[in-house]
Amino acid sequence: MINASTALYGVIGDPVAHSLSPTMQNWFIDQFHLNAVYAAFRVKSEKLGSCIDGMRAMGIGGLNVTVPHKEKVVAFADEWSDDVRLIGAANTLKNTGGFISAHVTDPYGFIESLGDNEQRFRGASVFMYGAGGAAKSVAYALAKLGVDQLLIVDSAAEKAVELAEQAVKSFGIKNASALQKPLAPVKTILTHTHIVINATPLGMHPWHDKTVVEYPDVITADHYFYDLVYNPGKTRFLREAEERGATIQNGLDMLIFQGLQSMRLWTEQPLALSAARLNDLRSIMNRQLGLNE
Amino acid sequence: MINASTALYGVIGDPVAHSLSPTMQNWFIDQFHLNAVYAAFRVKSEKLGSCIDGMRAMGIGGLNVTVPHKEKVVAFADEWSDDVRLIGAANTLKNTGGFISAHVTDPYGFIESLGDNEQRFRGASVFMYGAGGAAKSVAYALAKLGVDQLLIVDSAAEKAVELAEQAVKSFGIKNASALQKPLAPVKTILTHTHIVINATPLGMHPWHDKTVVEYPDVITADHYFYDLVYNPGKTRFLREAEERGATIQNGLDMLIFQGLQSMRLWTEQPLALSAARLNDLRSIMNRQLGLNE
Repeated sequence: MINASTALYGVIGDPVAHSLSPTMQNWFIDQFHLNAVYAAFRVKSEKLGSCIDGMRAMGIGGLNVTVPHKEKVVAFADEWSDDVRLIGAANTLKNTGGFISAHVTDPYGFIESLGDNEQRFRGASVFMYGAGGAAKSVAYALAKLGVDQLLIVDSAAEKAVELAEQAVKSFGIKNASALQKPLAPVKTILTHTHIVINATPLGMHPWHDKTVVEYPDVITADHYFYDLVYNPGKTRFLREAEERGATIQNGLDMLIFQGLQSMRLWTEQPLALSAARLNDLRSIMNRQLGLNE
Repeated sequence: MINASTALYGVIGDPVAHSLSPTMQNWFIDQFHLNAVYAAFRVKSEKLGSCIDGMRAMGIGGLNVTVPHKEKVVAFADEWSDDVRLIGAANTLKNTGGFISAHVTDPYGFIESLGDNEQRFRGASVFMYGAGGAAKSVAYALAKLGVDQLLIVDSAAEKAVELAEQAVKSFGIKNASALQKPLAPVKTILTHTHIVINATPLGMHPWHDKTVVEYPDVITADHYFYDLVYNPGKTRFLREAEERGATIQNGLDMLIFQGLQSMRLWTEQPLALSAARLNDLRSIMNRQLGLNE
């Protein structure tokens, strides 16, 4: 029951009409019996400053920030977490008495989504497709997970080089390289690198017949394939890996756990999700996406 | 179920912690199956401009405006209803694609609250205590109801004179006068004026042993006593009138119908409340006030 002391949270983006965050965060609010409500706000880039001033003026407790505002929003905050300083992007704003702190929960969402597979990462080599904003958060998470080596491929080669440099210099990964597609021995690398991540939109609806992987035949049961895409629930990237016995994971849990981490920041409560409840939430979100499990 | 296309409405004021509007408006949203949610925002006067800019930037669909912002907010709108121009105050803002129109629904709330007693007003004389913001909205409503004569008493005599002038010149009441307390024949006027309105806070919790009426003995069964106060549900003003057989009404229905009128403006739907549902809502609101009926 909403009353005059109900906290307001929300997500800002453009567009936001298809955001899953309202469904997810209001489900958290319900499950954890929080006196809060979560809405979606379509905010134009040029209105970002007015939006954050409005957040201060109206006492809006917290905002998630999504595409295309994650980088630009940083300048409008009053305080930044170390993660935001390093990554240069924020997905969570918290309002404490008109003082706005910026946070980024995507790397924590990635880590928490791994479950038991987290143990694969310490000292490991990781092959990542993509060098955009999502890939940057993953690279930061990989450093936290103790990954030894990160190999990055992106169709924009200079972005891959830049992220590899940042992964070493700022995030602290021992060894990171950008692979130049025509020259790099991608097939050999794929054979020997057992953690493979897709941080590109390829394979996402409506490109669901596409995959970044050119040599699926080298995939074995030792491989772990992680796709940040969650719509469709099983991309061609994941399907071809599963067919060869690999362990697979899509991006839905990362989305869930980055959102949960934002809610923890706003409420300062250690909200925990049981396996059964997590499954319920996955079903609700997949249903909203129009996906059968 | 809140989703990404759920509209956000709310109330701004300072304080707003005890506002009944969130309870009431979310009840309307539920009853009328609207895809919307309504929150309360405590906004400082000096932040009013940032709040309205934020409303534009975030696409907040509508705001109710309460004390102390009703007059000051007018300057921040882009367009004004005739009522707002005449009264100089607004209690409702509507956002149409970033364009903010200002409205005042209090007079409509007063009129709709009258029910069958509306017929008492055409051509009648009305005795009103109070000349503040609420009294102004009532005076405007009285003009619309076809009242012939309005007599105003206020402890601040110059405010009563000002409102009486405005009632004639701007609102179009044929005859309006401010009564100067020590000289005016208040007892005689009360005897012969059968509609008596309290638009002062006197009698409101925690002044519930007070009343503006000095001569309750002249009250008869022909009188109609209307108190804008709704907490307590029956003020001394109403109790003393009821004891003498008068018809009485408190301010709860005016609050309800001004809110409903705002929701009609925002949704552009002709929302109608049955007598039974109105009773349910009164109970819910009285319960929140801690009042037994």
